[in-house]
Amino acid sequence: MLSTTLRDRLGYAFRRPELLAQALTHRSCGANHNERLEFVGDAVLNCVVAAALFERFPAIPEGELSRVRASLVNRGTLARLARGLSLSDDVRLGEGELKSGGADRPSILADALEAVFGAVFVDAGYDAARAVVEHVYAGELADIDPAALGKDPKTRLQEWLQARKIAVPDYAVTLVAGEAHAQTFTVECRIPTLAIAATGSGTNRRAAEQDAAAEAYALAVARGG
Amino acid sequence: MLSTTLRDRLGYAFRRPELLAQALTHRSCGANHNERLEFVGDAVLNCVVAAALFERFPAIPEGELSRVRASLVNRGTLARLARGLSLSDDVRLGEGELKSGGADRPSILADALEAVFGAVFVDAGYDAARAVVEHVYAGELADIDPAALGKDPKTRLQEWLQARKIAVPDYAVTLVAGEAHAQTFTVECRIPTLAIAATGSGTNRRAAEQDAAAEAYALAVARGG
Repeated sequence: MLSTTLRDRLGYAFRRPELLAQALTHRSCGANHNERLEFVGDAVLNCVVAAALFERFPAIPEGELSRVRASLVNRGTLARLARGLSLSDDVRLGEGELKSGGADRPSILADALEAVFGAVFVDAGYDAARAVVEHVYAGELADIDPAALGKDPKTRLQEWLQARKIAVPDYAVTLVAGEAHAQTFTVECRIPTLAIAATGSGTNRRAAEQDAAAEAYALAVARGG
Repeated sequence: MLSTTLRDRLGYAFRRPELLAQALTHRSCGANHNERLEFVGDAVLNCVVAAALFERFPAIPEGELSRVRASLVNRGTLARLARGLSLSDDVRLGEGELKSGGADRPSILADALEAVFGAVFVDAGYDAARAVVEHVYAGELADIDPAALGKDPKTRLQEWLQARKIAVPDYAVTLVAGEAHAQTFTVECRIPTLAIAATGSGTNRRAAEQDAAAEAYALAVARGG
């Protein structure tokens, strides 16, 4: 039952269905849980998305590719995609986690989806895993706006908010650590309308603001741009 | 010349030698530099090493696999492997970098080696890149001591130092940040004999010490275990 429907949604039939079962098993549910597969899946996902971005955007510098990838593979995006696959119906949890609503917890869903990617890789290799990742991420990859890619994070965030008539963010330095010649600034970027408070860090205030803006942008888009 | 000898050391002949040339070009040397290939190569390296560890150590938990991978793909290990391949002879730098000894700088060597892995991936796909990574990392992968894998980082570091008659490390809390209910501890692990000062962080002192010990262990091993 489990693997029949999920098979269609993933576009992949497992040779060893026990790998899929393991990928969907949270550690609260027993020893044969999904953490090792998640370790592999996280690496496979990062690699497939890196390669896809490299190919699709031949003129975009590395820093920007990194930022876009981070927004695609973060917990929020993964949990949203996992919900789209109805993964919460199939995740196996211990009783405690189940009662406390674990099946809809973003971290559990995100980890399970990564473990599914890892299971496909272990089952049939890189090309099979790439096909499944690209199938699951088809909408995300198609939605990337090349025009927004060249922009610095603060500009991009501001334009995104303005297009939605949302008030511009506040930036505030929350921590300055380290000695005078090697300080690290921590900045918080707050968007009260969206209940977002993202932190970023850098060796100066401006860099920390850009870092916080990139994180806030990823959160804002993940909450349903 | 360049690609003939390096080809033998890598165990790989490029279909498109211009990709290898780009992988060896630092940004100080022109627009067609290696940063985008490094982005891909970093992801490929992480994936190949994750898969190799998953396969070789079927009973080791995820956290430990992550730590071992981190020690294999960090800048120190990459720079050492790049020196073993005599990559510094082939790296192309701008005049300023060249004069200031950039060809032997660990970050430049490490980035170039990652870019080479990325170039193989772009040239011929995942399996070709996996073969090159496994060829370059053959010694590292063979040297992993399964007996040390199950141990916590502080124990492992201490045993490693004792076996070499080096004095045990000092641990000191250098920063406590955040509000009372959500503090982050930063700990420094110092091994004066090896001139190592590694930092780690965690939500309590013990976790931060373990994190610092893991980093110190990686540095100690990279300096020529």
